Amino acid sequence: MNVPKLTMRRPDDFHVHLRDGWTLKQVLPATAEVFARALVMPNTTPPILNASDAIRYRSEILGECGKGGFTPLMTIQITDATVPETVRTASQAGVVAGKLYPVGVTTNSENGATDIKALYQVFGEMERAGMVLCLHGEEPGEFCLERESYFLDALEGLAGSFPRLRIVLEHLSSEEAVETVLALPETVAATITAHHLVLTLDDVIGGKLQPHHFCKPLPKTPADRAALIEAAISGNPKFFFGSDSAPHRIPTKECADGAAGVFSAPTALPVLAGVFEHEDALDRFEAFVSGHGARFYGLSPNEGAITLERRPWKGRLRYCGEYVPFMAGKPIDWRVAG
Amino acid sequence: MNVPKLTMRRPDDFHVHLRDGWTLKQVLPATAEVFARALVMPNTTPPILNASDAIRYRSEILGECGKGGFTPLMTIQITDATVPETVRTASQAGVVAGKLYPVGVTTNSENGATDIKALYQVFGEMERAGMVLCLHGEEPGEFCLERESYFLDALEGLAGSFPRLRIVLEHLSSEEAVETVLALPETVAATITAHHLVLTLDDVIGGKLQPHHFCKPLPKTPADRAALIEAAISGNPKFFFGSDSAPHRIPTKECADGAAGVFSAPTALPVLAGVFEHEDALDRFEAFVSGHGARFYGLSPNEGAITLERRPWKGRLRYCGEYVPFMAGKPIDWRVAG
Repeated sequence: MNVPKLTMRRPDDFHVHLRDGWTLKQVLPATAEVFARALVMPNTTPPILNASDAIRYRSEILGECGKGGFTPLMTIQITDATVPETVRTASQAGVVAGKLYPVGVTTNSENGATDIKALYQVFGEMERAGMVLCLHGEEPGEFCLERESYFLDALEGLAGSFPRLRIVLEHLSSEEAVETVLALPETVAATITAHHLVLTLDDVIGGKLQPHHFCKPLPKTPADRAALIEAAISGNPKFFFGSDSAPHRIPTKECADGAAGVFSAPTALPVLAGVFEHEDALDRFEAFVSGHGARFYGLSPNEGAITLERRPWKGRLRYCGEYVPFMAGKPIDWRVAG
Repeated sequence: MNVPKLTMRRPDDFHVHLRDGWTLKQVLPATAEVFARALVMPNTTPPILNASDAIRYRSEILGECGKGGFTPLMTIQITDATVPETVRTASQAGVVAGKLYPVGVTTNSENGATDIKALYQVFGEMERAGMVLCLHGEEPGEFCLERESYFLDALEGLAGSFPRLRIVLEHLSSEEAVETVLALPETVAATITAHHLVLTLDDVIGGKLQPHHFCKPLPKTPADRAALIEAAISGNPKFFFGSDSAPHRIPTKECADGAAGVFSAPTALPVLAGVFEHEDALDRFEAFVSGHGARFYGLSPNEGAITLERRPWKGRLRYCGEYVPFMAGKPIDWRVAG
């Protein structure tokens, strides 16, 4: 029997947490073996705040990569302390994006921005330098399921005030956010994760409590998930893949005060293929994972190809013995060949 | 300085999980030292399904109580296998209520009822026998935050079909359910827990993941909580206290597949006093915990008194070393004297 195959341009992951030190060493292969490039989030401990942090962090990542084939795209975190000069030097050092977390909305966001308006000079400099602004789009203090909705006003304000600033609303989680991104100019795009295309809130708290499905923004209603799927498969270049893969060791997930984040790097691409296949949209899969994002960031398309095979398997229960990957123990229809 | 005191008739808990065996031995004192009576839920493993189960279970509980002062009010679980004769003999054996769980909605409800209409002869017999019908009012299969809402049609159907059957909608969690209970005849009442008066969904998944706040029905929005507080302090005899205290050992809460339930027995009464005080409604506190429920169940008021003192403390982190009580480590303004 012939195994169905899908060969396509090597993909990018435009939102990943690689951590540092020993964790980086453990989790990097899951990303680097599949993706040609990944936009590396800056919320390490301590965070990546400027050019020199980013240069050091890039060296650390490249040092773990072994022989070529993977390019980390570096970011800095935009905090209350960021100034236009920070942006200028970071941009000159090759940093492609600045990530803004409102204070306290997710893992390691305690030093997040408290007042977006106070950062308008920074955003102006990002616009001039051609640095992308990546947003964790949740408004702190609001009811947990409405935080993304409350943030959309700020997104519209930014897009209006900085018409040439490229803005990415990260990890979309709601129908309302999809509609807002669609209505804004082409300078505003959005990433969508694999897990937000699969999970709803029922998969976190609807049955027994599932800490390995717990993430921010929270997965929401079936209607929200349907809107995200529709956006992902639409072929609209505003929507592209960012895994938000966020590894946490088991004791920090299965505890009295559990960390938010889904470690999806080991399974995201096969899971996505399954979603696109289910929607009869495999012809638009390559654009979502290997096309739109690169174009939005002004990067050349990746060289080389990757092949997925339709050979159903069950997701591994553990990764490096210390992490539970997304879809652990669950059926996955596709796998990366080779 | 004088410590403010609150002396009142001994209270009842009209919804508690006491478990059995070693767990019963551990958790019973938390209930029996404070409450004169408690309606004991039947979803033990195996469950309490008939008169002989209930007689045996009551003996086990009384055997652990030591010298008097606590009366367990027994229930049986209404399942697809329950027949009118089950109700008749249980009622004759002193069982005061039948508890119906729709299949799969919460802990140990795998054997729950699959078709409420198929049980109408059973409900007819409960009506004749004067046995109260206690409902876990959630519709399985619906989106997790809407299950209570979807169940309300069934509640209205039952109230309409059995006009003399006393029905208790357990552990109210939404504004809509409060309104539905208010609109139904006086044969329909509802219990409210301490934790649903304190928590919203933000306290479960809004920050880091809090498995010890995870329960069914899920705590919902701030508006839902406000409606529950309003109902509890209203003085309306339709609303009375049922803790739904549900002990689970720490490894079954802090794990990859966490059990639902808040172990509130050790702190519920002081926490409730704080809620009523905050709402300037301490004059209606005794009715909520020591009056309305007994009257609805046709029981005489408890003898004896209990005293609460306003001496702020922090909730204990552990109970018997194996359970995390509600409000562990959090400030509690009142305590039971003695």
